[in-house]
Amino acid sequence: MAGGNADVLDIYPLNHYYFGSKESLPLKEEETLDHRIQRLKFNYNTHGIRICVQVVLLVDLFKHPHLLLLQVRHSMYKLPGGRLRPGESEIECLRRKLSSKLSMSEEDDRWEVGECLGMWWRPDFETLIYPFLPPNIKRPKECTKLFLVRLPESCKFIVPKNLKLIAVPLCQVHENFKTYGPIIAGVPQLLSKFSYNTPDTD
Amino acid sequence: MAGGNADVLDIYPLNHYYFGSKESLPLKEEETLDHRIQRLKFNYNTHGIRICVQVVLLVDLFKHPHLLLLQVRHSMYKLPGGRLRPGESEIECLRRKLSSKLSMSEEDDRWEVGECLGMWWRPDFETLIYPFLPPNIKRPKECTKLFLVRLPESCKFIVPKNLKLIAVPLCQVHENFKTYGPIIAGVPQLLSKFSYNTPDTD
Repeated sequence: MAGGNADVLDIYPLNHYYFGSKESLPLKEEETLDHRIQRLKFNYNTHGIRICVQVVLLVDLFKHPHLLLLQVRHSMYKLPGGRLRPGESEIECLRRKLSSKLSMSEEDDRWEVGECLGMWWRPDFETLIYPFLPPNIKRPKECTKLFLVRLPESCKFIVPKNLKLIAVPLCQVHENFKTYGPIIAGVPQLLSKFSYNTPDTD
Repeated sequence: MAGGNADVLDIYPLNHYYFGSKESLPLKEEETLDHRIQRLKFNYNTHGIRICVQVVLLVDLFKHPHLLLLQVRHSMYKLPGGRLRPGESEIECLRRKLSSKLSMSEEDDRWEVGECLGMWWRPDFETLIYPFLPPNIKRPKECTKLFLVRLPESCKFIVPKNLKLIAVPLCQVHENFKTYGPIIAGVPQLLSKFSYNTPDTD
């Protein structure tokens, strides 16, 4: 619109995608905050910084981009993704997590993992996260990286029965920290350099 | 750290830059909200959507990135930039605005305007702005585009006497909507895909 080299993102209507279900995924037991911090400390001392990777998947609905989120236990919302195993690369981890949470088999690697959109840092086990490394933090405890995945024109999502995949409009996610937490609530901003295009696919 | 293709941004210490002053810039008179909206409506009907361009300039201080902001009337903070004149390109406008607000002469075009980091939309004259085009808005009234400018290792900033150029740490800007407004408060997130490097420049 204003000329120049705007990034254009093709997104396709929600009804281009098939949503099915598969066996439940074993979820971590709920744990107390104390236990969680103990576990994180142990893992940090053994493996170093915890690195998480998450993906941003978009579909079109009513001519507005919608973000695909996984809902856990009817309350918590998450971007698809997870934590790197020791020695695992980011891309390997993403493929593994996307296969286990969004599709049928581990051989499935149609996922086209694109550019990194942003990173969030946790300076200590009990603290908030920030979209930068806070001053004087030399040994951050966690880094979460968000990647854009461009969906094909059409595909199947096969989701474990104990998770729910939902499409939430960007306008509802934006700055809605209470419902979605800081990472998801900030996704519309991370995407704000893109213009959207819904290709004519008759 | 996590492997992969992180975007790395070179930033240089604040004391690499010289800050001087020049003649005051004529500022718009303060106007009532009613007058402002009348003016915006008139301009929209004459020229169409209002397009603003702003730049993100970073320096290093105490090993933390700092954002350069212009302070107007000892209260309002702004990213350097401004509104496109009819027929003007984004890059022409940026060069003009950066020359008038941050340097000595109009011939000065050392500014290396980089990628677009994000866009904010105003659907109507009196409404809030959003980092996406809200649903059902076909004729937005304003678009503000943020561009990254990579500063050289050293340069002079010559700023009009009635403006003040200040360096604010990212950690202070982040989500500080009240002081800085939504656009500036969101800059740390827009930059969150970058890792910072302060080259050794002895």
